[in-house]
Amino acid sequence: MSDLERVGVSLDKALLGQFDELIAGQGYMNRSEAVRDLIRDRLSAKQLGDPAADAVAGIFLVYDHHSTTLTNKLLHLQHDHVLDIVASIHLHLDHHNCLEIIIVKGKVKKIQALADKMGSLKGVKLSKTNMISIT
Amino acid sequence: MSDLERVGVSLDKALLGQFDELIAGQGYMNRSEAVRDLIRDRLSAKQLGDPAADAVAGIFLVYDHHSTTLTNKLLHLQHDHVLDIVASIHLHLDHHNCLEIIIVKGKVKKIQALADKMGSLKGVKLSKTNMISIT
Amino acid sequence: MSDLERVGVSLDKALLGQFDELIAGQGYMNRSEAVRDLIRDRLSAKQLGDPAADAVAGIFLVYDHHSTTLTNKLLHLQHDHVLDIVASIHLHLDHHNCLEIIIVKGKVKKIQALADKMGSLKGVKLSKTNMISIT
Amino acid sequence: MSDLERVGVSLDKALLGQFDELIAGQGYMNRSEAVRDLIRDRLSAKQLGDPAADAVAGIFLVYDHHSTTLTNKLLHLQHDHVLDIVASIHLHLDHHNCLEIIIVKGKVKKIQALADKMGSLKGVKLSKTNMISIT
Repeated sequence: MSDLERVGVSLDKALLGQFDELIAGQGYMNRSEAVRDLIRDRLSAKQLGDPAADAVAGIFLVYDHHSTTLTNKLLHLQHDHVLDIVASIHLHLDHHNCLEIIIVKGKVKKIQALADKMGSLKGVKLSKTNMISIT
Repeated sequence: MSDLERVGVSLDKALLGQFDELIAGQGYMNRSEAVRDLIRDRLSAKQLGDPAADAVAGIFLVYDHHSTTLTNKLLHLQHDHVLDIVASIHLHLDHHNCLEIIIVKGKVKKIQALADKMGSLKGVKLSKTNMISIT
Repeated sequence: MSDLERVGVSLDKALLGQFDELIAGQGYMNRSEAVRDLIRDRLSAKQLGDPAADAVAGIFLVYDHHSTTLTNKLLHLQHDHVLDIVASIHLHLDHHNCLEIIIVKGKVKKIQALADKMGSLKGVKLSKTNMISIT
Repeated sequence: MSDLERVGVSLDKALLGQFDELIAGQGYMNRSEAVRDLIRDRLSAKQLGDPAADAVAGIFLVYDHHSTTLTNKLLHLQHDHVLDIVASIHLHLDHHNCLEIIIVKGKVKKIQALADKMGSLKGVKLSKTNMISIT
């Protein structure tokens, strides 16, 4: 159970109207929830600017599954890096393309280095990493 | 088997030196591979600017697993949206926080709308969507 | 004189502590100001997702000032586009490089098209556009 | 006069076709120029990840020009920071809003700190910084 505090924020009526419209469109039931999310989002983004911060990430790799040696190389990379590899998920997108999502925990800098290594492997066509910092 | 074409690119030696250093640090074995990835990356980013483009995405949600009704709401949202929900993966981050990654295929605009709805649910603390367009 | 409304937001004490630390580091004197800025920032970002929205932008171009015909081409582009070119500023960065900032007002889509055209001119080494939507 | 080197890149015909279409739409006259820009863009982005790298930036501030003390505070901040303030430009957007663009040179980290301070001043409604690293 968390310890709540009530904070008052003064807002221009026009600005408030636009904000209410935005968050209603997204599905928020009340402003407090939306403001909390804005704050958490900003804190997470700020944390990710620090290479030494802890983060959890999904490394998305799109590759041609006919690259037979790629899977081995990806596995080796996962074992070589001192990161907590939490899980991975493999999806068939179409006849040629697979999407592999490798979920890792660790320092921002180390996650980025692993993602760079994986993305640069021959056969990997696209890579994009989603990082979140939970403080 | 794909049909390759060889393209010549003229580059300033200083610029080439910096590029070689960058891609060696990332792990690339040759320049062609690195240039191809730059091109694919740009094409994917361009595509994602079009709300009607096809994409695959992972919607990352961090939530307190004590929010008992949240799981049901997330399931309802997945069934209500005409998107191809491919898979989902659930991870325990710490005592309070779970990470749920919901993988969807569909139009950019619809994925964004679903992600907004999920992110705005009470109990969801952080949400961040990773979208990729495979042309 | 604007019409203010006071809104109450419930926040977890731990989250509030982190937020207070973040905004104190940035120089905010009070939370209301920081929350208003978060909201305006989000609204502006949302608006920029709409190609038809009004925006103001600075198109930053780094180019070698020895490219003698480039300045003419840039001027022609400014005259060819039905955008409100507000001003431009030219800076000497070093012996080779100039930075030109062209400030324009118009629809998001038209600004992007003009920025693409300018960035693709021979001699322009780097281009990066900063867009803001003021609602 | 720069020292050019010709590099060969092997590309899938389908990928090449998409790339040609993309760059023609942006206005490029040839592929070399487009590939060079992709490379410079990536190098600049990589550099900006280093807080100690040199950069040039435009700090965009939207503020209500009825905030009479703001201009003074902005000037003080410019003098207090050991950054090379190159120029500034001031535009009237509408009856209430001004856009001030302050162009600075310095280390990424210091530019960010100055931008944070300016953005957090009372009266500044929106701030967004455009940073470029020229290596």
